[in-house]
Amino acid sequence: MHDCCIMVKTTREVGTLYKIGIVGASGYTGAELIRILHHHPKCTVAKIYSRSLAGQPVSDVFPGFFGMDLVFSDPTEDDFSGLDLLFLAVPAGAAGEYAKRFKGKVIDLGADFRFKDHEIYSKTYGKQHGAPELLQEATYGIPELFRDQIKASRIVGNPGCYPTSIILGLAPLIKTGYDGEIIASSLSGTSGAGKALSDAQHFAHRDENFGPYKVGCHRHTPEIEKALESLSGKPHKVVFVPHLVPAIRGITSTIYIDRVMSLNEAKQLYAEFYKDEFFVRVKDAGDVESKNVLHSNFVDIQVYEDLHADKLIIVSAIDNLIKGASGQAVQNMNLLFGLPEHTALDFYPAYP
Amino acid sequence: MHDCCIMVKTTREVGTLYKIGIVGASGYTGAELIRILHHHPKCTVAKIYSRSLAGQPVSDVFPGFFGMDLVFSDPTEDDFSGLDLLFLAVPAGAAGEYAKRFKGKVIDLGADFRFKDHEIYSKTYGKQHGAPELLQEATYGIPELFRDQIKASRIVGNPGCYPTSIILGLAPLIKTGYDGEIIASSLSGTSGAGKALSDAQHFAHRDENFGPYKVGCHRHTPEIEKALESLSGKPHKVVFVPHLVPAIRGITSTIYIDRVMSLNEAKQLYAEFYKDEFFVRVKDAGDVESKNVLHSNFVDIQVYEDLHADKLIIVSAIDNLIKGASGQAVQNMNLLFGLPEHTALDFYPAYP
Amino acid sequence: MHDCCIMVKTTREVGTLYKIGIVGASGYTGAELIRILHHHPKCTVAKIYSRSLAGQPVSDVFPGFFGMDLVFSDPTEDDFSGLDLLFLAVPAGAAGEYAKRFKGKVIDLGADFRFKDHEIYSKTYGKQHGAPELLQEATYGIPELFRDQIKASRIVGNPGCYPTSIILGLAPLIKTGYDGEIIASSLSGTSGAGKALSDAQHFAHRDENFGPYKVGCHRHTPEIEKALESLSGKPHKVVFVPHLVPAIRGITSTIYIDRVMSLNEAKQLYAEFYKDEFFVRVKDAGDVESKNVLHSNFVDIQVYEDLHADKLIIVSAIDNLIKGASGQAVQNMNLLFGLPEHTALDFYPAYP
Amino acid sequence: MHDCCIMVKTTREVGTLYKIGIVGASGYTGAELIRILHHHPKCTVAKIYSRSLAGQPVSDVFPGFFGMDLVFSDPTEDDFSGLDLLFLAVPAGAAGEYAKRFKGKVIDLGADFRFKDHEIYSKTYGKQHGAPELLQEATYGIPELFRDQIKASRIVGNPGCYPTSIILGLAPLIKTGYDGEIIASSLSGTSGAGKALSDAQHFAHRDENFGPYKVGCHRHTPEIEKALESLSGKPHKVVFVPHLVPAIRGITSTIYIDRVMSLNEAKQLYAEFYKDEFFVRVKDAGDVESKNVLHSNFVDIQVYEDLHADKLIIVSAIDNLIKGASGQAVQNMNLLFGLPEHTALDFYPAYP
Repeated sequence: MHDCCIMVKTTREVGTLYKIGIVGASGYTGAELIRILHHHPKCTVAKIYSRSLAGQPVSDVFPGFFGMDLVFSDPTEDDFSGLDLLFLAVPAGAAGEYAKRFKGKVIDLGADFRFKDHEIYSKTYGKQHGAPELLQEATYGIPELFRDQIKASRIVGNPGCYPTSIILGLAPLIKTGYDGEIIASSLSGTSGAGKALSDAQHFAHRDENFGPYKVGCHRHTPEIEKALESLSGKPHKVVFVPHLVPAIRGITSTIYIDRVMSLNEAKQLYAEFYKDEFFVRVKDAGDVESKNVLHSNFVDIQVYEDLHADKLIIVSAIDNLIKGASGQAVQNMNLLFGLPEHTALDFYPAYP
Repeated sequence: MHDCCIMVKTTREVGTLYKIGIVGASGYTGAELIRILHHHPKCTVAKIYSRSLAGQPVSDVFPGFFGMDLVFSDPTEDDFSGLDLLFLAVPAGAAGEYAKRFKGKVIDLGADFRFKDHEIYSKTYGKQHGAPELLQEATYGIPELFRDQIKASRIVGNPGCYPTSIILGLAPLIKTGYDGEIIASSLSGTSGAGKALSDAQHFAHRDENFGPYKVGCHRHTPEIEKALESLSGKPHKVVFVPHLVPAIRGITSTIYIDRVMSLNEAKQLYAEFYKDEFFVRVKDAGDVESKNVLHSNFVDIQVYEDLHADKLIIVSAIDNLIKGASGQAVQNMNLLFGLPEHTALDFYPAYP
Repeated sequence: MHDCCIMVKTTREVGTLYKIGIVGASGYTGAELIRILHHHPKCTVAKIYSRSLAGQPVSDVFPGFFGMDLVFSDPTEDDFSGLDLLFLAVPAGAAGEYAKRFKGKVIDLGADFRFKDHEIYSKTYGKQHGAPELLQEATYGIPELFRDQIKASRIVGNPGCYPTSIILGLAPLIKTGYDGEIIASSLSGTSGAGKALSDAQHFAHRDENFGPYKVGCHRHTPEIEKALESLSGKPHKVVFVPHLVPAIRGITSTIYIDRVMSLNEAKQLYAEFYKDEFFVRVKDAGDVESKNVLHSNFVDIQVYEDLHADKLIIVSAIDNLIKGASGQAVQNMNLLFGLPEHTALDFYPAYP
Repeated sequence: MHDCCIMVKTTREVGTLYKIGIVGASGYTGAELIRILHHHPKCTVAKIYSRSLAGQPVSDVFPGFFGMDLVFSDPTEDDFSGLDLLFLAVPAGAAGEYAKRFKGKVIDLGADFRFKDHEIYSKTYGKQHGAPELLQEATYGIPELFRDQIKASRIVGNPGCYPTSIILGLAPLIKTGYDGEIIASSLSGTSGAGKALSDAQHFAHRDENFGPYKVGCHRHTPEIEKALESLSGKPHKVVFVPHLVPAIRGITSTIYIDRVMSLNEAKQLYAEFYKDEFFVRVKDAGDVESKNVLHSNFVDIQVYEDLHADKLIIVSAIDNLIKGASGQAVQNMNLLFGLPEHTALDFYPAYP
């Protein structure tokens, strides 16, 4: 294989490229960032960082990237000069330090900038926050709901995968004043758990195996509740149970709500609420399946009802690594740079 | 391979064997019945029936049964004479006719004998019942809950797979008088949909794909509600949403309930309720995963709580083809014959 | 979701777009063509055809394409006027007729234009060829091996998936004069069998199941042998056994060859042979795995040796639907239009 | 759940039970041994050993065994008194010590007793043998080929999974004098690699991923060659390439051989050779698939031909953890105790 990089350069408008750095690029979200940004016409991945992998070419870690001309640097020995934006995919508690050291724009894919209140963060993640003083200048990064605030921010806290699917599934109702019971039962592929080895993720154990985990105590519950509160101005209680299924990617959330309006009214509400959103596809019929959004930045949402038990049931689906992580991060980056929001993200799901 | 059948005969006590027939043995539940009964020390599979496959050896349909000496017969041309019990795995509406023609014991793996009221059956399945006059002598076949009635019955309506997991998960609370909200979110492997070909079950579509289906309208909802009513004497509303996941076998049900007692009280209630049940394993810690019961007749149940939202969450897991179908059918057969209930069913899950 | 099509139009240079038609767009290769061409800066999918689906929007067949503005037309009632190129993904025997009706450029993803000799075609596929008189103006479409002939052709016979992986794996040695034994053992995901429903592709059967099929009689054997002959000028015998594995995509071929040179010589030969090829990645270490090329147009190739038994072993990997079908078809289209060969194809594999 | 152990005891003939110990019972082969022996009418699992897990109940390690009354002991602090037979599932090099300490019958599931020559062992496994003086009293444990020697042995070296599938696939031809080229291309589920965590076995990496590994250098090659030599009295060269596929269990081997006889002659040879073997099923038509033997001790074998290239192709399939490990170990145990060879092993594959 030859001249991959040459080609890439010639298909981009050299001279106007934003220079991007990725700290913690050795995981799944880092790989997706690299892959998506490779096609971004206005950006270039200038530096990738990993302390443990410093000096190694990216294709040693991701053999699928063989031919790509990137080498890991040590983030502790770099001043990030020349970079326009830093993506952070680092362990809980570590993002604050980077956001202090780097004065440019920061998008954190972890949880460190998802809460305004550092005490809730500490209680949820069991760590001291690395830069509580920066929380006020950070915005929770769901563009469809907080677009204007994001544009004006230096730091974006990119949302969790489950919260993205649940908050977008609930937002139209919450904004309309819904304050009843919320039960969210989510299914996820395994990549959400990352590359760290564990018995639970060993192929022979995980394959042909599924069920709920962290019942009643998942860290994403406070994140969901705080985001809903920021939409409605009042507190909400959410019962959230995640389930692992033997698939690599994808999240579907099935959300049980009181039937505060008819199915038709709810369908109209959702269609209207998201009518200008490129990435949200409000469906009117059929099943919502994870495969329909895999390898894309789309969110599919559909409202159902259970008339006999008087419930509305909202189902949403995303690719956990794209709209649930790296795709949404690039969407936020596009906002920060004033680029069309779907730049490098307007790809359709691969099928089958 | 040689003398398989000889061996089987010699390891059984010839002379005391019950003669079993299986109508509709060409599907997954039929295959599981054949496989389980092959090891039953008191029974022999005397005849297997399938109209479309009449005359074909069983190994033409199930190549894994190569060496097994069974040939399909046409059930429409047989008087079932000499048989002690008939398992029915036939399409909805067809079981009644067989239960009229055969005067011996009948266990129906379909839905035809799950309701006392033929109008609910007709409304749910869109068919006339084939033998409404027999419904009063049929019993709903969950041995752990209706053991004495089953023993006294000629006809058993073997429960659906989802209902088995949900009813056993709820029974202790329902018997104690619970009459609050019930939301059951179930996950299932694909074998529950049977062998019939469909786009939804095509490997390249189904693999790496998951999500809810029949939201708000699954046929198992009335079955669950009627069974709960027969336990408590009062009607219950159940919100039930099934989800398909890319696995062959297994069902887990996550059931959301009001916190009418403390977690400890609930744990004690469940442990006490099932303390004499061989197949129900009330767990006290860890996750409930489908793999822990695959290829076994066990039901794993665990109670959790969400204190902050004031909910109890009950999780149960079964193998949909065993405790959810053929294993439970053999358990019912053992009851009908007065045999130890776990005969031929005391096998542990295969791992991994 | 809104204005998807508007965006797409604005990111392309309107006015210079080639107009593309796809006949038989209802299958997996059709879906991949639509998806890849959606991002092609110089082409637009002007028409998609399917007789049975005429009038239906593409998202009815591929729900993942929800939001895409394409409707199936009936190819039997269209004169293809205004189109610059027609992709054919039609049943064996049907491509000839289209290649006669449409006078523009044609890329056939089936087997109809893979052989120069229509008698070999008929013997292999059991059909009369629809346009034997056109075979001489058709070229076998592996760009890395037949680039100049492809550029000069009106019709391209896009290669089979297994042949692509095996021929590219053998070409350097065959060109050097190798004429010894060739044994090719290939593994494939199931999407190569297409969307047609079958017991073999039913999820519960296919999952956790693998093994060889069509042992000693697969239709791709003559295609491989003829392509090798066109490289060396002499006939070759290939023993080819395909195996199905429980994955959606990917092909790996393990090819056993006499050790006619040392491993180092072979490695140098391959590196040199493919040094200018964008899509061929000659690897020097590690394993060759299907995942490293999934969702990309790359071919990974590595040479190994078994010194004790005096064999060279060549392993190659492709995504069967991209380099093995639709990606290679777009690569051929780029050649026919004089565009950079990797236009719209320079994407890296998705991981994980 | 109650009285599981009571039931088990009552269904066995108490008083005549052989007492079995399993050292290294914390892995997959240990779990399969426990599960199979649980149903053995003449044996009881008296002790299970694992140094690291000493004191823990078996259900802490294998939650599917919840209810089973077994606790791990420390094998370094036990004299194995009272045991009739010891299964060893320990790391390479460790079995010799146990075979010296315990004077009763020993079946080693590792490689330590598979070679007569400790130098070949050392060269292959990179370790000193722990008890070279015992190698002469050990027998390679494929009952179908070495039944009489096994019966007369104190120590059995239970074969590797790949070798079992390949040696049984070749034995009839090798015994007839075949000494031509042998190329064996095997596919395996991942459980053969055991429970040890690794990037290669991480679900998100392994799922949807396949390809060859250890090309030209797998440790099973010498084992296969030595076993064939013991059948024919002359040396053989085998080219063996294993492939990992995304399934939990199963091995299929596709073996390429010169066409030294016609297909019909070969089919008769195989049928005759294995006609008295309970576990070997020589098939005459259809495909050989792993699923047809999963969860059973069967070996399916079929001979094919490639007439145009003058090759015979033999395909065999086993469950790697049963006939390829624990099932075959129990088969050997039955021989050592003079029990019917299929005791506790006459179960058919589970489908689907």
